[in-house]
Amino acid sequence: MSSTAGKVIRCRAAVAWEAGKPLVIEEVEVAPPQASEVRLKILFTALCHTDVYFWEAKGQNPLFPRIYGHEAGGIVESVGEGVTDLQPGDTVLPVFTGECKECVHCKSEESNMCDLLRINTDRGVMIGDGNSRFSINGKPIYHFVGTSTFSEYTVCHVGSVAKINPLAPLEKVCVLSCGISTGLGATLNVAKPKKGSTVAVFGLGAVGLAAAEGARIAGASRIIGVDLNPKRFEEAKKFGVTEFVNPKDHNKPIQEVLVEITNGGVDRSVECTGNVDAMISAFESVHDGWGVAVLVGVPHKDAVFKTHPMNLLNERTLKGTFFGNYKPRSDIPSVVEKYLNKELELDKFLTHEVPFSEINKAFDLMLKGEGIRCIIRMEE
Amino acid sequence: MSSTAGKVIRCRAAVAWEAGKPLVIEEVEVAPPQASEVRLKILFTALCHTDVYFWEAKGQNPLFPRIYGHEAGGIVESVGEGVTDLQPGDTVLPVFTGECKECVHCKSEESNMCDLLRINTDRGVMIGDGNSRFSINGKPIYHFVGTSTFSEYTVCHVGSVAKINPLAPLEKVCVLSCGISTGLGATLNVAKPKKGSTVAVFGLGAVGLAAAEGARIAGASRIIGVDLNPKRFEEAKKFGVTEFVNPKDHNKPIQEVLVEITNGGVDRSVECTGNVDAMISAFESVHDGWGVAVLVGVPHKDAVFKTHPMNLLNERTLKGTFFGNYKPRSDIPSVVEKYLNKELELDKFLTHEVPFSEINKAFDLMLKGEGIRCIIRMEE
Ligand SMILES: NC(=O)c1ccc[n+]([C@@H]2O[C@H](COP(=O)([O-])OP(=O)(O)OC[C@H]3O[C@@H](n4cnc5c(N)ncnc54)[C@H](O)[C@@H]3O)[C@@H](O)[C@H]2O)c1
Ligand SMILES: NC(=O)c1ccc[n+]([C@@H]2O[C@H](COP(=O)([O-])OP(=O)(O)OC[C@H]3O[C@@H](n4cnc5c(N)ncnc54)[C@H](O)[C@@H]3O)[C@@H](O)[C@H]2O)c1
Ligand SMILES: [Zn+2]
Ligand SMILES: [Zn+2]
Ligand SMILES: [Zn+2]
Ligand SMILES: [Zn+2]
Repeated sequence: MSSTAGKVIRCRAAVAWEAGKPLVIEEVEVAPPQASEVRLKILFTALCHTDVYFWEAKGQNPLFPRIYGHEAGGIVESVGEGVTDLQPGDTVLPVFTGECKECVHCKSEESNMCDLLRINTDRGVMIGDGNSRFSINGKPIYHFVGTSTFSEYTVCHVGSVAKINPLAPLEKVCVLSCGISTGLGATLNVAKPKKGSTVAVFGLGAVGLAAAEGARIAGASRIIGVDLNPKRFEEAKKFGVTEFVNPKDHNKPIQEVLVEITNGGVDRSVECTGNVDAMISAFESVHDGWGVAVLVGVPHKDAVFKTHPMNLLNERTLKGTFFGNYKPRSDIPSVVEKYLNKELELDKFLTHEVPFSEINKAFDLMLKGEGIRCIIRMEE
Repeated sequence: MSSTAGKVIRCRAAVAWEAGKPLVIEEVEVAPPQASEVRLKILFTALCHTDVYFWEAKGQNPLFPRIYGHEAGGIVESVGEGVTDLQPGDTVLPVFTGECKECVHCKSEESNMCDLLRINTDRGVMIGDGNSRFSINGKPIYHFVGTSTFSEYTVCHVGSVAKINPLAPLEKVCVLSCGISTGLGATLNVAKPKKGSTVAVFGLGAVGLAAAEGARIAGASRIIGVDLNPKRFEEAKKFGVTEFVNPKDHNKPIQEVLVEITNGGVDRSVECTGNVDAMISAFESVHDGWGVAVLVGVPHKDAVFKTHPMNLLNERTLKGTFFGNYKPRSDIPSVVEKYLNKELELDKFLTHEVPFSEINKAFDLMLKGEGIRCIIRMEE
């Protein structure tokens, strides 16, 4: 039992007071975990586009002040009533989407879209009692996607916390709690390319590069990167991408180009852009008879996916995935093992690192499109 | 060696001289099979919508005079040069889509869309020498989809002929060469419902009823039939369909109704209508997390499949299939065995029978929407 268990912890957190304004490192109070909750000491966190997107709060309901952050690794500090799966000292990754292990999705072998703990960006409070565990001078600060890892301590539902191998270096594997697992799983769990096959990856951000890493692990012989931004190609070379195609360099639909250079279409495509036209191109690029296209990018709410049904009838498959189809508690520990076994390379994703006090630099890098992942070290 | 081998055979065939006009039983000459071809004696044939559709020739290039027919069973009469896979006397089903066993599709485990022998409704001649094997007084009569089974004898490419168990009753299993295998395979090979699952079938024609038969064989616990024509429901009861939904009885999209009555969506849906709105409904009816929708119906050439990409991202799968993903020569013999084992029921599909001389009655029945399959007996 830690000396802080059951008590309010005062610690540093990076608070977003207003949409789009730099975060401010504040001293916050973190209440003890309630039933089915755990309190974590965060050691490393990283910045993902989703944090930036909701911090910018363009066109969404703004919940401020709020503590963002959802790619992270830490140690369990204390556990709430009834928690038996985790104990203080466990090495963990909090995850933005949970696994209650009781609902119809958790019981299905195929789904990871837990009814209870599925991502909810509109909720800023704990699911149990509807309150926040964060405050400043008694005034509540909102949570973000059940994780709020831009704080030295945070409280999560036990279903949103994956217990991993304590030998794993958290400054590396923390990135497995969102984007990297999403792209990796999209390829390994959903697209499932065979050894020797041809895979196209649309969008070479962190998620797309992780999808390419999945294709490399699966033994794809050609990995074709598609991006509108030629700067992405240099970085992507480290990720086993063998060919690059920029839609801007062609005066016909990019799916036609891919069909030509692959003699009929790619075996698999993985779309990691969020752009609906790229989704359609990714689908129409796959070979008839066996091709599978997997959509990962989160589309605009008014987007419409359109295609001629004959493209489907000619035995193409179209799927979408959420968090790479990984169940966070059941499956993420084995992804960590893949890294420890040297099957999965993570270091090439970690292009920057800043101390917690300089967290706004991570936002600047992302806004400028520099690098892939910036690790934020909580202890200075 | 049969006494007719190598010679022109004169026999009866039902010739379509003009679009939409009754067929005329004529004496035709059937030339001997050339290299890679076989000549078949047809014993039973059945009428399928595709025959009627191309005979009506609305909006297509008409090829007349033509001999239609593609659901049939017969015996090999003689074989052309180089044919070793079949020999005179073999019991066979000709199939409208072939399997060359050499192309990239035939070599793929997944595809049945043979590059060489894939269905081609625009070609009215043999693939080898570009000529017809049928003539009347030397004037050629066009073939149809490589089968032209409305003739006592026909010539097919060897790749379009499945050799089956000689103990199989051809007057029953002849229907396995098109619609029934298409619907059955759509469920068993593509949708693959688990035992106890819920399956929706859109469109309760022969193909949809065969899809329902597949769901029954797979052990589905609920089979929901969706059709605009309430007459279809009576017949469908014999096919294990447990519930009926008519979109006309509801004032909201039918996918919403299905989601409500199944508490979140069906596990699998199989669309057998050819209507693009039904395709969209079939897709949007499946459960998030694991639902799979399979499109079978052949759409209008200007149809556009539209859906919000979030429907895919929420882990739904959309697939299309052609001939139930069966490879005609490799797989259809085992479907015949399923019937012989009493696993598959065929008799309930066979609602009518006429002698060859009354083949136009089969057309009348289909145009009136009566029954499911009408068997045409060649020997009177
Ligand atoms: N499904 C999930 O569980 C999940 C999880 C995390 C992120 N995502 C989504 O994945 C997507 C990628 O995330 P990221 O962090 O890698 O983003 P990113 O912005 O770093 O990368 C996206 C890349 O796509 C490229 N792009 C944009 N439009 C394109 C087009 N039409 N054709 C080709 N390339 C195009 C951009 O140039 C950019 O390089 C986002 O939509 C994100 O919301 C989904
Ligand atoms: N993919 C293949 O390999 C393949 C092979 C054979 C047939 N087909 C296609 O399968 C489809 C079905 O063939 P069939 O012979 O059973 O046809 P059919 O005309 O006998 O049956 C179709 C049924 O769908 C119903 N229907 C039409 N629109 C509907 C809607 N919007 N909602 C609900 N029900 C609707 C009709 O009332 C009818 O009962 C056709 O499109 C045919 O071309 C495909
Ligand atoms: Zn759950
Ligand atoms: Zn993220
Ligand atoms: Zn072939
Ligand atoms: Zn047919």
